[in-house]
Amino acid sequence: VSESRRVEAFSDGVLAIAITLLVLDLKVPAAAPGELWRALGHEGWSYAAYVTSFLVIGIMWVNHHAIFDRIGRINRPVLFLNLFLLLVIAAIPYPTSLLAGYLRRGGENAKVAAVVYSGTMLLAAIAFSALWGYVARRPQLLAARVDPVSARASIRRFSAGTLVYLGTVGLALVSAQVTLVVHFLIAIFYVFNQIPVGERVGPAESERMQA
Amino acid sequence: VSESRRVEAFSDGVLAIAITLLVLDLKVPAAAPGELWRALGHEGWSYAAYVTSFLVIGIMWVNHHAIFDRIGRINRPVLFLNLFLLLVIAAIPYPTSLLAGYLRRGGENAKVAAVVYSGTMLLAAIAFSALWGYVARRPQLLAARVDPVSARASIRRFSAGTLVYLGTVGLALVSAQVTLVVHFLIAIFYVFNQIPVGERVGPAESERMQA
Amino acid sequence: VSESRRVEAFSDGVLAIAITLLVLDLKVPAAAPGELWRALGHEGWSYAAYVTSFLVIGIMWVNHHAIFDRIGRINRPVLFLNLFLLLVIAAIPYPTSLLAGYLRRGGENAKVAAVVYSGTMLLAAIAFSALWGYVARRPQLLAARVDPVSARASIRRFSAGTLVYLGTVGLALVSAQVTLVVHFLIAIFYVFNQIPVGERVGPAESERMQA
Amino acid sequence: VSESRRVEAFSDGVLAIAITLLVLDLKVPAAAPGELWRALGHEGWSYAAYVTSFLVIGIMWVNHHAIFDRIGRINRPVLFLNLFLLLVIAAIPYPTSLLAGYLRRGGENAKVAAVVYSGTMLLAAIAFSALWGYVARRPQLLAARVDPVSARASIRRFSAGTLVYLGTVGLALVSAQVTLVVHFLIAIFYVFNQIPVGERVGPAESERMQA
Repeated sequence: VSESRRVEAFSDGVLAIAITLLVLDLKVPAAAPGELWRALGHEGWSYAAYVTSFLVIGIMWVNHHAIFDRIGRINRPVLFLNLFLLLVIAAIPYPTSLLAGYLRRGGENAKVAAVVYSGTMLLAAIAFSALWGYVARRPQLLAARVDPVSARASIRRFSAGTLVYLGTVGLALVSAQVTLVVHFLIAIFYVFNQIPVGERVGPAESERMQA
Repeated sequence: VSESRRVEAFSDGVLAIAITLLVLDLKVPAAAPGELWRALGHEGWSYAAYVTSFLVIGIMWVNHHAIFDRIGRINRPVLFLNLFLLLVIAAIPYPTSLLAGYLRRGGENAKVAAVVYSGTMLLAAIAFSALWGYVARRPQLLAARVDPVSARASIRRFSAGTLVYLGTVGLALVSAQVTLVVHFLIAIFYVFNQIPVGERVGPAESERMQA
Repeated sequence: VSESRRVEAFSDGVLAIAITLLVLDLKVPAAAPGELWRALGHEGWSYAAYVTSFLVIGIMWVNHHAIFDRIGRINRPVLFLNLFLLLVIAAIPYPTSLLAGYLRRGGENAKVAAVVYSGTMLLAAIAFSALWGYVARRPQLLAARVDPVSARASIRRFSAGTLVYLGTVGLALVSAQVTLVVHFLIAIFYVFNQIPVGERVGPAESERMQA
Repeated sequence: VSESRRVEAFSDGVLAIAITLLVLDLKVPAAAPGELWRALGHEGWSYAAYVTSFLVIGIMWVNHHAIFDRIGRINRPVLFLNLFLLLVIAAIPYPTSLLAGYLRRGGENAKVAAVVYSGTMLLAAIAFSALWGYVARRPQLLAARVDPVSARASIRRFSAGTLVYLGTVGLALVSAQVTLVVHFLIAIFYVFNQIPVGERVGPAESERMQA
């Protein structure tokens, strides 16, 4: 097992746990007899937040894999840039819980919660950009089959997502509900569009992903 | 590690975590001196729900493995059909907790909780069918040793389980207790009967499973 | 990856999660100013239960590995005997929490909690014996390097632990505190004495364990 | 898969879970309308404790890997020295939660919580030293490419960290806040300085880590 594989396995573990812990934020409501449907309806935003954050972390997993698939060597800065990224991703259940809890009540607090939620996603985007930007500028760290020029060229497009998340921080000040919907739509967009991380020179197993 | 293996490892992680998180729904009752046996007895439905959901997720793990064992190539739709499936499975501790909590109290709310529980299982069955239906119709995605004709033919039988789970949604409107028992019995049935996912042309390590 | 390896990896995941979830049973006490040391002291039994259950699950992991190391083929009964074993192990945080909570208060309830705790360990011992008993009686399931005669002969010694755990159920009726201490001592005993699971004919990597 | 790899995989699982469970200690505050920013501000120490403990466990993962990378054979003492180490690391979310909860309130209780937090880190350092000290003194347990003389020589430098953590226990009696900051700074120090675990004779994949 190469260093790269082992760091990836640990990261996969953290992502799998974080995505599964999201369910702990879903609360069983206490309902009077005959009132459970209504009580569950009040939890609607919690379910929406669960689905959105699940999808977001799922896409982060795909992106994380795409990056590590292109890394040939790990050095200490990569190790700790990755640890910083994991720190942010592992925290996602918290802003999810915060947003779910305050969305229902609405008002200023809901907007604050949405700012924190969007801010966490922005931080994750920055951490991703820092990691890929560091690697893509160092051909000696790239896997042999990755074209260094194309990798470097992809940095800017890769980081474009950061601006989108910056926008959602602003949006949160306007409407918390719309902010969650937009995060869901961004996630759906990424389901259909792989974030660019440089072209391959040679074939690889992951080429199958392009099918 | 092939793409397929890595997606499977991530999925295994999510299933292992979801199945283990079920224990967090078991509550330590507050009992007056000398009343603990009785208080634990009141938790009986929680234990029944724990055992049932544990068995259900365990069988989903077996089925998930049977499907991925027959997948030779992963593409983006497979990746996200699988993510949707994981989203449903990872949520199972929630309806389990909901059903356990309201079964004890009975009445209309218990039936509502049972509808949600059955509905989650139905959703999981649909997600499984969507994943296998997508793969089995595309010979280029199947592992070399899998017979495409037999794989395609298995889709209908595979999806038959969906009808069973639809039935449990209806049953939930009649009796929440019977619904949980039926889910337990369905799980026991699947312990003894592998869900059909197409025949093998050549041998494979998993052939041993048929022994 | 052979079937056996994959089942083992899933089981390892469940054990790693169960052993780590034990920490969630440790409660941060609410203490008046200057009273935290005393409040932490009141949690002493919780810490003792944490250490004991951690050690117990750790030893179960070692035993689980020793068994799977000797399994060459997996069939459906092995799969589900293993799932039953995991069901019991994954539940251990619950009786741990129950025992920790009532030990402090003492009285009859503490003994009931100790009976449940010992009963869970007894159930785990039975599940282990059922799994190893099933495999050891079927030479076709054993790894090539395992001597079938010695494997079969080990069943009785392997199952001897079951009697010990049966004894702890009786002990629980006498003293809950002593019961926890005895579980700790049994675990320490197993740290120094591998449970017998049949001799090897040929060498294996795990032979190193005997060093 | 060698014994060493398997023990490492289990340990990685426990570390990945422990590091991800830290998020469960972050509480969503109940805030009056328009008061959420302020309420989140009150949680500041919780966030600081989350980041610090995340970093600490992250570095423990790096060190754990560095040690196991140099282990060629596992015997029973190594197995259980490692289990003891995992017991301490898996417990870290508890003192983190304790310290986060009492830091906000300050006073004597905060210092007690800081003593417990520092004490846990000290215990982890002792467990690391015991594990590495045991292995480094036994050339037959070292990987072939590790120089036994250099491994043995590294024991003292490796254990130096224990003294630092002993110092943080004393510091905790002076100021809980400063103690948390110092733990954060120690972690940052280790980000830039690999704890010495003996030099390599031959090349290994992990050599890349030095780049």
